[in-house]
Amino acid sequence: MGNYTRQGKRAFWAVIPAGGSGSRLWPLSRAARPKFLLPLLGERSLLQQTFDRLCGLTEPERILIVCGPAHVAAIARQLPELPSGNIIVEPAPNGTGPALALATAIIAARDPHAIMGSFAADHDVAEIENFTCAVQTAISAAKSRRLVTIGIEPTRPETGYGYIERTDRVVVENPEGTAFEAARFIEKPDLATAESYLEAGTYLWNAGMFVWRVDALLAELKRLQPQIFDGVMHIVRSWEKPQSERVLMETWPTLPNITIDTGVMELAERVAVVPADLGWSDVGDWHGLGELIERDALGNSVKGDLLRIDTTNSVIWSETGRMVAMLGLDNIIVVDTEDALLVIDRRKSQEVKKVVEQLKANLRTELS
Amino acid sequence: MGNYTRQGKRAFWAVIPAGGSGSRLWPLSRAARPKFLLPLLGERSLLQQTFDRLCGLTEPERILIVCGPAHVAAIARQLPELPSGNIIVEPAPNGTGPALALATAIIAARDPHAIMGSFAADHDVAEIENFTCAVQTAISAAKSRRLVTIGIEPTRPETGYGYIERTDRVVVENPEGTAFEAARFIEKPDLATAESYLEAGTYLWNAGMFVWRVDALLAELKRLQPQIFDGVMHIVRSWEKPQSERVLMETWPTLPNITIDTGVMELAERVAVVPADLGWSDVGDWHGLGELIERDALGNSVKGDLLRIDTTNSVIWSETGRMVAMLGLDNIIVVDTEDALLVIDRRKSQEVKKVVEQLKANLRTELS
Repeated sequence: MGNYTRQGKRAFWAVIPAGGSGSRLWPLSRAARPKFLLPLLGERSLLQQTFDRLCGLTEPERILIVCGPAHVAAIARQLPELPSGNIIVEPAPNGTGPALALATAIIAARDPHAIMGSFAADHDVAEIENFTCAVQTAISAAKSRRLVTIGIEPTRPETGYGYIERTDRVVVENPEGTAFEAARFIEKPDLATAESYLEAGTYLWNAGMFVWRVDALLAELKRLQPQIFDGVMHIVRSWEKPQSERVLMETWPTLPNITIDTGVMELAERVAVVPADLGWSDVGDWHGLGELIERDALGNSVKGDLLRIDTTNSVIWSETGRMVAMLGLDNIIVVDTEDALLVIDRRKSQEVKKVVEQLKANLRTELS
Repeated sequence: MGNYTRQGKRAFWAVIPAGGSGSRLWPLSRAARPKFLLPLLGERSLLQQTFDRLCGLTEPERILIVCGPAHVAAIARQLPELPSGNIIVEPAPNGTGPALALATAIIAARDPHAIMGSFAADHDVAEIENFTCAVQTAISAAKSRRLVTIGIEPTRPETGYGYIERTDRVVVENPEGTAFEAARFIEKPDLATAESYLEAGTYLWNAGMFVWRVDALLAELKRLQPQIFDGVMHIVRSWEKPQSERVLMETWPTLPNITIDTGVMELAERVAVVPADLGWSDVGDWHGLGELIERDALGNSVKGDLLRIDTTNSVIWSETGRMVAMLGLDNIIVVDTEDALLVIDRRKSQEVKKVVEQLKANLRTELS
């Protein structure tokens, strides 16, 4: 680890934006019990697993989490090693742009020479060693003031993710990997386009993993999003002072709600990308989660006590201990929790968020 | 009521065989919580509704229930008006042949001139007035020592029921209805045959509703099933005496396990049938139960708190108060109980008994 916590004088910091409830994993995920707090894959939550991965690259003292007020306590309990001052509370969700800008500015105030990376709290990475190598390569590429992304080598023509096209121009090549100059960021494509990307071999999934020098990011932010830059610098000047909460509460709503992707990365001048094979998943919906857990001979992903007859390719997730009996079904998802039960066509997994939207519209906030 | 409780010197008695757990309605029905004890259609259980219907034809003192030892207490609690001595406990299930033979012999011992009818404990009758009229007609036809059935006028080419073919020879015709001489009893037909029955108009569903003079039935029983006749007469001689339980326990297992249909009705010489339009259902499975409860505009039969998106022709039955969310489904049945959850293709409703069989094979008797 010591090799990478100090790159010359540059220490590596990691930021975990922990926003979003993961509404496509309802009814397991809720506003009050977001996806990143759930132990979906193993004993530890997705957030804990993200933290564990980053502990292979830096110390807990240099890991920051940005989250909403409702989740501070749960995060503090799940990560006892994390210093309390490293939990940054954003007063209201406002996109990853302001959140990462604030985290960057806070790190820059503590350590002006820092290199930092940003990693979602609720994604899965199966290949930990490849992850560590990719971040190391990204750190090397970031030293030259480039904004660096880690791009996932696609394994299927996925239409649910954005892509990053890379050039053939090598920025860094070392035993751990290669960083190329990026060509462009691309929104979610249609299937034919996604298939052409898969074939071309120079398109990578945008997994929201970014590495940069804090001074480089702040310079681009000042140029591209001056309102956010001014706002976070104003907030940071009062950070850990008596007026900090008031300044944050007043300033935050004035910042434009924008993602770091569209606000900075897509517009920035010197962007690099490190292709990586991480066994990565955004654990985005029940279909995807079903693919990450063990399947029986008939393609059923089962958590719980299932009695199945003529049932195939289904996902059964029971939290209640009740027996689930299924008969004559294919491609069905059943999720059984104490206060809500979900039954859907697996091919409609993306639409589970519609259920949450309806619950909110019906003011059934206890379930949404 | 007075008109029909005494037909000349003949009082009308009613027997309700309450055997069978209704395993196709699992997980609502269980061995310990059989279908007839459940309030599936309204506030009162199917047994209570059967009892209520028969109270339009006779007094509680002349209604007998035949059941297993496990259900005596629940039946006694559900029917406080029923005299305790009118619950006949069969030591073990042995088909409707011995059960109805014993009930007939017990009634004959109390009232040798009685006419009695037998009506399943777990069927539904929507047209109560038509039911009363049909039984009155059957009582009239039974006076001439005929064994009479009430046959349901078919409304669809059902392959799940047995049929009774009638002749055109009228036995009784009165304002309440007509009794014809029966031609024959027929086992469950295939679809083409069932369609020809529906077209012919002289075939009726066998709903297991029988009316006879007790002396006429005992005479046919002696001729056709002498072993059952001798056994039940032996039991009845000791009935309500100190040795009654011992005699019953010893004799019962020696009686052949046979239904009254195949053991007597199909072989008897003078059988009549009263065609009737009763809005009848055997409430046999979840598909059938779904057809009996109110449906929304998209064909969903719902009991409980359902949030549905793009869901049609489904049956949702929740006993737990939990919210059920369904999305992108057609023809699915979801049954939610405290300790078990069933999800099946509606077209496989008949196969739910396979689940119960597997539970028994796995020794999960707490759930079966």
